[in-house]
Amino acid sequence: MKKGVRLGIDLGGTRVKLALIDEKGKIHATAHVDTVFNPRKLFADLRDAVRPWLKRKLLGTGVGVAGDVDSTAGVVRISPNLKWNRVPLKKLLEKAGFPRPVVVDNDANAAAWGAYHVELKGRPRNLVVLTLGTGVGGGLILDGKLFRGATGSAGEPGHITLDPHGTKCGCGGRGCLETFLGKKYLIAWMRRELIKRGRPVPKGLTPLSIGNAARKGDKLSLKLWEQAGRALGIGLSDIINLLNPDTILLTGGIAGSFDLLIRSARPEIQARTFATPRRAVRIRVSSENQHLGVIGSALLVE
Amino acid sequence: MKKGVRLGIDLGGTRVKLALIDEKGKIHATAHVDTVFNPRKLFADLRDAVRPWLKRKLLGTGVGVAGDVDSTAGVVRISPNLKWNRVPLKKLLEKAGFPRPVVVDNDANAAAWGAYHVELKGRPRNLVVLTLGTGVGGGLILDGKLFRGATGSAGEPGHITLDPHGTKCGCGGRGCLETFLGKKYLIAWMRRELIKRGRPVPKGLTPLSIGNAARKGDKLSLKLWEQAGRALGIGLSDIINLLNPDTILLTGGIAGSFDLLIRSARPEIQARTFATPRRAVRIRVSSENQHLGVIGSALLVE
Repeated sequence: MKKGVRLGIDLGGTRVKLALIDEKGKIHATAHVDTVFNPRKLFADLRDAVRPWLKRKLLGTGVGVAGDVDSTAGVVRISPNLKWNRVPLKKLLEKAGFPRPVVVDNDANAAAWGAYHVELKGRPRNLVVLTLGTGVGGGLILDGKLFRGATGSAGEPGHITLDPHGTKCGCGGRGCLETFLGKKYLIAWMRRELIKRGRPVPKGLTPLSIGNAARKGDKLSLKLWEQAGRALGIGLSDIINLLNPDTILLTGGIAGSFDLLIRSARPEIQARTFATPRRAVRIRVSSENQHLGVIGSALLVE
Repeated sequence: MKKGVRLGIDLGGTRVKLALIDEKGKIHATAHVDTVFNPRKLFADLRDAVRPWLKRKLLGTGVGVAGDVDSTAGVVRISPNLKWNRVPLKKLLEKAGFPRPVVVDNDANAAAWGAYHVELKGRPRNLVVLTLGTGVGGGLILDGKLFRGATGSAGEPGHITLDPHGTKCGCGGRGCLETFLGKKYLIAWMRRELIKRGRPVPKGLTPLSIGNAARKGDKLSLKLWEQAGRALGIGLSDIINLLNPDTILLTGGIAGSFDLLIRSARPEIQARTFATPRRAVRIRVSSENQHLGVIGSALLVE
């Protein structure tokens, strides 16, 4: 990683985070603007936000975008969140005067890259990041590099199939890991089971509240985490057998229930993985630095 | 890949294949010896076999071994086939005068590396090799390099879980891809179903004979391939979503039934993968060069 400061942009559906980041992942300045969908208007807003920073010598601009990104060409193929379709983001940002080179990638890849450098100090050679949030996403660092695959689409562990006949998934598949661990699926399951039992559905049912109920001994909540943990264990086993990572890092809100998940995940991993890779892998929970996305975006400029 | 000839050794449980291979994977000479389990005796036999070749200038020795191999240290951790336990193969071969450097790896990795160079001319950046034989093995070429993972254990696609409550697998898990596609499981399924229906069990039931029966319209045989194909489709979907390869190469005897497998595999892949990586991946059957193992072993010396 070259010494110096680069501009990071984390381009989300409601908000854009900007920051100046050095090679160690240290934040030198931050800003944010609201997301507008018109690229021209958005770039003008971003340009205004970074104007005071441009007096400094910057190594380049790294951008993480929620969506399907062709990182090689710097094109956002499709971003449902931004309502974008084939936007040549790299070219547009370079034209708009953002520091060159401009490197564009998927936001989950950028966050994984940020976690790798900030939380793990770039140490393990092979890291799998699993983000347990509304959906289940991720990113792969293989042989010390962000692994993108043929089209920049690598690293979708949320769509490993766990039960071929299971719940329909947003991706079009059935019984994906995400249908066992994604926030909306967990809440839907809980709601359904409560109604089935004639119990009231509490307002503001969240994974956090279900986690707290489980820790107080609520059987239905415990059952939910037991199932989700088993699914996590099977999904991690697939990853361990296929990729033999040094470290698996769990991020996102649901990772806060790791204490509950790991109880049933561990026996699955024990049963389903080979001894050598099982002993080698360290499974840990991220300390949840909220800036990993923008830091990782900046560090895309290596 | 450096220009020149290297020695390749494919160390199997019953036979050792040796060959001189150039940087293009071309075979300059071959030999073989029977496997003996005593390493000292085995090395003496191998030494005799290669003696006439040692007058040539060789770039090194590459060895593929069936078992759990620490490629970095050049140690065979365990090889059930060779009845070996912690054999420092690299050091022993170097001491015995084999051309240096000696590079040791798992035989499936070596075969995948051979297929990459010989069949695919080293072209796709990201290749997943799936070997459908007695078991289901594999190897990963990622960003143009053999990917080994933390302990050299990466690339076991046969032990992705397809059905958490499925058939007990040799690995200790349940419902692994191998239990749907491995030769012995296919034959056991057929035998069981024939007996259940009061039909005679033909002598010498093989995947080949079951394939031929299916092509003649036998319903039970068609059902077997339909199930196996669905499992293959789900396993390949997991691989496509996780690794986004350019190419998936199917090798091994069962790959000869690709025409039957793909009928039910394709709809699963269609339903379970994202469009961008699905469109990018080419699934092809190996032309089954029987020397890929020894060629790939030799080419471990880059």
